[in-house]
Amino acid sequence: MRLDDLLKSIVPADGKAKQQAQRRWDSIAKPLGSLGRLEEAVVRIAGMRGNPNFSLERRGLVIMCADNGVVAEGVTQTGQEVTATVTENFTKGATSVCAMARVAKCDWFPVDIGVAANLGGCSGLIHHKVAWGTKNLRWEPAMTREQAKEAICFGAQLALDLGEKGYQLLATGEMGIGNTTTSSAMTAVLVGCPVEEVTGRGAGLSTPALSHKVEVIRQAIDLHRPDPQDPLDVLSKVGGLDIAGLAGVFLGAASARLPVLVDGFISAVAALTAVRLCPAAADYLLASHISQEPASALLLQELGLSPLICADMHLGEGSGAVAAIPLLDMAVAVYQQMCTFAETEIEAYQPLK
Amino acid sequence: MRLDDLLKSIVPADGKAKQQAQRRWDSIAKPLGSLGRLEEAVVRIAGMRGNPNFSLERRGLVIMCADNGVVAEGVTQTGQEVTATVTENFTKGATSVCAMARVAKCDWFPVDIGVAANLGGCSGLIHHKVAWGTKNLRWEPAMTREQAKEAICFGAQLALDLGEKGYQLLATGEMGIGNTTTSSAMTAVLVGCPVEEVTGRGAGLSTPALSHKVEVIRQAIDLHRPDPQDPLDVLSKVGGLDIAGLAGVFLGAASARLPVLVDGFISAVAALTAVRLCPAAADYLLASHISQEPASALLLQELGLSPLICADMHLGEGSGAVAAIPLLDMAVAVYQQMCTFAETEIEAYQPLK
Repeated sequence: MRLDDLLKSIVPADGKAKQQAQRRWDSIAKPLGSLGRLEEAVVRIAGMRGNPNFSLERRGLVIMCADNGVVAEGVTQTGQEVTATVTENFTKGATSVCAMARVAKCDWFPVDIGVAANLGGCSGLIHHKVAWGTKNLRWEPAMTREQAKEAICFGAQLALDLGEKGYQLLATGEMGIGNTTTSSAMTAVLVGCPVEEVTGRGAGLSTPALSHKVEVIRQAIDLHRPDPQDPLDVLSKVGGLDIAGLAGVFLGAASARLPVLVDGFISAVAALTAVRLCPAAADYLLASHISQEPASALLLQELGLSPLICADMHLGEGSGAVAAIPLLDMAVAVYQQMCTFAETEIEAYQPLK
Repeated sequence: MRLDDLLKSIVPADGKAKQQAQRRWDSIAKPLGSLGRLEEAVVRIAGMRGNPNFSLERRGLVIMCADNGVVAEGVTQTGQEVTATVTENFTKGATSVCAMARVAKCDWFPVDIGVAANLGGCSGLIHHKVAWGTKNLRWEPAMTREQAKEAICFGAQLALDLGEKGYQLLATGEMGIGNTTTSSAMTAVLVGCPVEEVTGRGAGLSTPALSHKVEVIRQAIDLHRPDPQDPLDVLSKVGGLDIAGLAGVFLGAASARLPVLVDGFISAVAALTAVRLCPAAADYLLASHISQEPASALLLQELGLSPLICADMHLGEGSGAVAAIPLLDMAVAVYQQMCTFAETEIEAYQPLK
């Protein structure tokens, strides 16, 4: 798949299907709009699917796993080897998000898009190692532009394949020690705001370590001068392969007209990358939660999304995206099962004048 | 049951069980505290149950249904008859919260605690009609002090009975046209703040109708001068039987050491009433969502709770409380199933200094 072709394949959501879904909501015997953002999500999904009668029964979480050379700068609390360990644990169903996904009846698909360890023998993993981790962005570009494109196109193909297999809702997650550093760097450039405002403690940095992380990101941006108007430039110079792969998942989902749940900070940066490459891709994004990372609110705003969950989660792995699935299930249950005002003989509520 | 005995039966949550649950979380192979408020909820539930190994498998939603005489003042968009219609629909599984509760695997128990219609022939309803709706609080006290006590004690007994039957988690909901008016009146008095700050559009009032609602509440408070230090005085003069019944459910849940989910505005007012009657009852409350009603944030703050869901819901019926159940399920799944750092051979994350 060529990136240009992928971007051209994405069309905006269907306004007519959205209207039909909105009319259905307004006919249901309950106060107008009283399920708030859950109603809005259902309307938007109808637009994505081009059909007010849709199902979300088959859902899959794509977890992009990759290492980041910048961990050599001491920007993380744990060592790089944790990425490989947790990546393997996904295949055993032995991580936090796996336990949550079982409750949410969501399949999960871990991908080695760039782990710095040999996971070739690991079954249950999708293998597409673009590199053995990225370069250290403090001193050199994290990856080449070609590598970024390759990771995007692979993520997109995966989303398209899942759509072909009958998946109706995708969720996004990641594992990669150091990926809040790359995400903060990309956010600072793409949104154009000071590094310290978009840099947080990740998995639990101390205050001096946080200052160091900010400084490393600043130096990298000063060195590479990524072009904010060129998402691929930003991604390849200060991003990561997990972010690139997820940006591809967002684009592929949009191409397949599949709703795709944004997770927390890292996933939202990938979503923003996708939207900067193709604005129509924004129509296919669903918000899940607002994470504890400081840039989370800012990114959701950039994406035009409002969160459903505000539980101070910051676990990664797609945990926030998966957490939102039962909320969507409940919204769809009301949307599909509830009787209308006409059926209940309750006089309809009037819209606000 | 006597109210005094009920209040005396409530003991604070078990600090030792909370510590044990916290230690379990801290040993799990994931960043410390990364499930945020979901972890906190699990720790608090351990304290409520007095046991770090608990189950939430059996859960029940109590829906208190009652009418409010104040609807005669034109403070609502719909007529009083809607209360009875929706109350009957609960027994048929034909309301929004029923569709949601099926997804959340939660049973529901609608209660006629004061509907102004004869529902005696309605099976599947719990019958304890304290009055055929309350009086019009604009001109006279909504109910007598004895009626308030009776509704509280009945709600408490119901919670205790559900505990006896093996329910491990309760959720609270209500149906009663006019009950955002009573809730705003009670909030203004109990929290001591201007009526206009805690009064909203309910199921969808226009701006002039909202002004009228504020004025009616102001006049009622001026007339009755309820004593903010005496929750029963506030409840009986400007409250409702649904609120009284739910206050009872919160107290009964606390007495039975059961976690109980607060829903939105009306349920939160009932929870505050319970806590003002017995401060230790606060230990047994779980937050669900922050509703679109303006007093919602204020009440959660008074209760010392932080919401999990921020989806602008304002449907009532317990819909927010039920929506939170799968989030708790996912938290418990991680808490129970996840391996520890020791088991995964990942070095433990360090707590922040």
